[in-house]
Amino acid sequence: MTQRVLTGITTTGTPHLGNYVGAIRPAIAASREPGVESFFFLADYHALIKCDDPARIARSRLEIAATWLAAGLDTDRVTFYAQSDIPEITELNWLLTCVTAKGQMNRAHAYKASVDANTAKGEDPDAGVTMGLYCYPVLMAADILMFNAHRVPVGRDQVQHIEMARDVALRFNHLYGGGKELFVLPEAEIEESVATLPGLDGRKMSKSYDNTVPLFEGGPKALKDAIARIVTDSKLPGEPKDPEGAHLVTIYDAFATAEQRAAFRADLRGGLAWGEAKQRLVDLIEAHVGPMRARYADLVAHPDQIEAVLQAGADKARARATPFLRELRHAVGLRRMVASAAVQAEASAAARPAVPVFKQYREADGQFYFKLTTASGHLLLQSAAFAEGREAGNWVKRFKAEGAAVLAEAPVSVAEGVQRAEVEAALTALVASLQDA
Amino acid sequence: MTQRVLTGITTTGTPHLGNYVGAIRPAIAASREPGVESFFFLADYHALIKCDDPARIARSRLEIAATWLAAGLDTDRVTFYAQSDIPEITELNWLLTCVTAKGQMNRAHAYKASVDANTAKGEDPDAGVTMGLYCYPVLMAADILMFNAHRVPVGRDQVQHIEMARDVALRFNHLYGGGKELFVLPEAEIEESVATLPGLDGRKMSKSYDNTVPLFEGGPKALKDAIARIVTDSKLPGEPKDPEGAHLVTIYDAFATAEQRAAFRADLRGGLAWGEAKQRLVDLIEAHVGPMRARYADLVAHPDQIEAVLQAGADKARARATPFLRELRHAVGLRRMVASAAVQAEASAAARPAVPVFKQYREADGQFYFKLTTASGHLLLQSAAFAEGREAGNWVKRFKAEGAAVLAEAPVSVAEGVQRAEVEAALTALVASLQDA
Repeated sequence: MTQRVLTGITTTGTPHLGNYVGAIRPAIAASREPGVESFFFLADYHALIKCDDPARIARSRLEIAATWLAAGLDTDRVTFYAQSDIPEITELNWLLTCVTAKGQMNRAHAYKASVDANTAKGEDPDAGVTMGLYCYPVLMAADILMFNAHRVPVGRDQVQHIEMARDVALRFNHLYGGGKELFVLPEAEIEESVATLPGLDGRKMSKSYDNTVPLFEGGPKALKDAIARIVTDSKLPGEPKDPEGAHLVTIYDAFATAEQRAAFRADLRGGLAWGEAKQRLVDLIEAHVGPMRARYADLVAHPDQIEAVLQAGADKARARATPFLRELRHAVGLRRMVASAAVQAEASAAARPAVPVFKQYREADGQFYFKLTTASGHLLLQSAAFAEGREAGNWVKRFKAEGAAVLAEAPVSVAEGVQRAEVEAALTALVASLQDA
Repeated sequence: MTQRVLTGITTTGTPHLGNYVGAIRPAIAASREPGVESFFFLADYHALIKCDDPARIARSRLEIAATWLAAGLDTDRVTFYAQSDIPEITELNWLLTCVTAKGQMNRAHAYKASVDANTAKGEDPDAGVTMGLYCYPVLMAADILMFNAHRVPVGRDQVQHIEMARDVALRFNHLYGGGKELFVLPEAEIEESVATLPGLDGRKMSKSYDNTVPLFEGGPKALKDAIARIVTDSKLPGEPKDPEGAHLVTIYDAFATAEQRAAFRADLRGGLAWGEAKQRLVDLIEAHVGPMRARYADLVAHPDQIEAVLQAGADKARARATPFLRELRHAVGLRRMVASAAVQAEASAAARPAVPVFKQYREADGQFYFKLTTASGHLLLQSAAFAEGREAGNWVKRFKAEGAAVLAEAPVSVAEGVQRAEVEAALTALVASLQDA
């Protein structure tokens, strides 16, 4: 069974090389694994808790989105969206708020840390604590449960929040499920093996230690300048150097093949000067990061392109969120008022299969395509190739408006092993769901 | 200046005669005053705090909506909607959550009452307290601030919540307004003079005293049976009776003209039997309530009609909420990413006047009309009369899609003192805002 994996990306600060190696690169690699459906979102509602500088919020959303896209996030494969583009999330947040025990929030680590700090200073326990900080675990539960994620990769400090999301999901299922599991119970996936890159001084690379190597900022020069500041021992050129324990080598390893690693070690033992070793490190990282930096610069210069990607991602996310929230609203009693004959119809609608999804994408051949799949990803319809993305978009638009009637003229073929009637029914359901919405 | 007045209607329980006299009737009368723009909403998100029985929530939404409509709420004049049909409210709720101090919520009366009760029983202070109960004042602030209501009629127990909404609005304006008052600071309007109707036993009519007279339930028979149970003294027919202090007379007064009041008193002093007095009371109330009960029964039998009214109300409410939330999102930094040329355009858009509004309504002559006004209510365009509401609706739909181009063929006239160019600009702005949304 496909596992849904959800990753929130904090939209504050600018990612450095340590974030790339420790978080961005492994997450993108994981999203390419088979049997995984990944959701990546800019956690910009969360960012408002920590930051009340609008320009910084706006800039950070742009930079973080550009960073992930430049680093190779494949938006045809994953669902990539800004949390704040999914209004269903705040609505679900309220539904969950109503079933969350306050006592549980009192025990949240982040809140307790603030209370302890205040108490130590002899202040009111809640001094300077906003409701945003306090309610944050409920919003996080809404993020996860909205897409019924099975797994949420998190650091140890976030495990408690996933447990809270499970508890809230359990309680909601119990109160409103009528025996049905409305919410999947999410599991924390603890990132034990995450490579933490050392910084310039050998401690973990972190903004708070001021020991970071920039990822894209400042271009190759900034990268070179930072690496020049990496602390080494004071062995002279020609003297044999011990590669083990040198954090310069650890950073090198993060980007090198096995052969490169072995050669680098041998050369250091053979007396390679630290200055030259640093130049090799610069070259290695630059070979890896340079093409991404060019993509990053291009994206940041064209914010409207990033916005278009995020909007397409939001559409994809809402294709799930909208019907699911309708089901949840129905479960709590926020129901359309319907004439009694229609009551039956609505009741059976809840049991109806989830609506199918159109996906538009571009292949390696540079051509544009679209396809129709069931909600669970089973292929129903495959388009021919288009030179222009707009052409594909126009066909999808027509299918969404006119449904199965478009089948006769569209350049599409029904997937192998699928009945035409199945496709027609799926299109009819899709059109109906869009009109209901 | 038009004053916006906002009234939330709790969607739990079934209204009785006391609710009608004390709340429904005066609120509807107040909504007819000149210079007032009223917002009435079903507080169904709030209802979820108190009630986890979905069927009861659904039934109550239906009955309460039907009650207010049957009692004469004029949905052409007021904006009548279900809170849960305005997703912007939960989104604003989160924005406000981020600027609300937790300490302030700790001081909320309803929460403190729960804590005191728990403490008295020796339990954990937060035992049985949900986050819904605790966060309720923030959601209430979102209800009020979403429509920038000037006045909120409330009982004394709710005054604190309005003060909290003011504080949150002040803080948001200060943090994000950049000198502009994003939110109007709402004022509580304390309902001092509200008539509290006595119940069967003379105490205030209240479900908790089990002394209510039904409003619509059970028909004329239930009304008659309840009134038969009103406690009186035991004076016999023919004996003079003192009308002052008899709560039967107080109930009579709530529905009677000055002449009827005088005649009733004179007859009681003249020896009118209590049984006969009760029959007169039944007749008086029935004359008032009977036609409403018929409308009520008709509405409850046609839930789809109520739903249509609520959806039209939600459209009207969202015509304000959607652009306003966009402005608020921009203020906190949740901005569309735009190419630099467009940045200027977006910045100036914030300074653009609010978008105009189409209103559809029915006059006393039974004919249907629509008009276009500025956001502040200044008339721009007036339609001719239509026999069918749908005709008016179709023209409005075309204006919203095609803008000023429709002016040439539509049966409308530009309001006195208004330039045609002004109307054209307003329509263009409206179409643009709908496409942005």
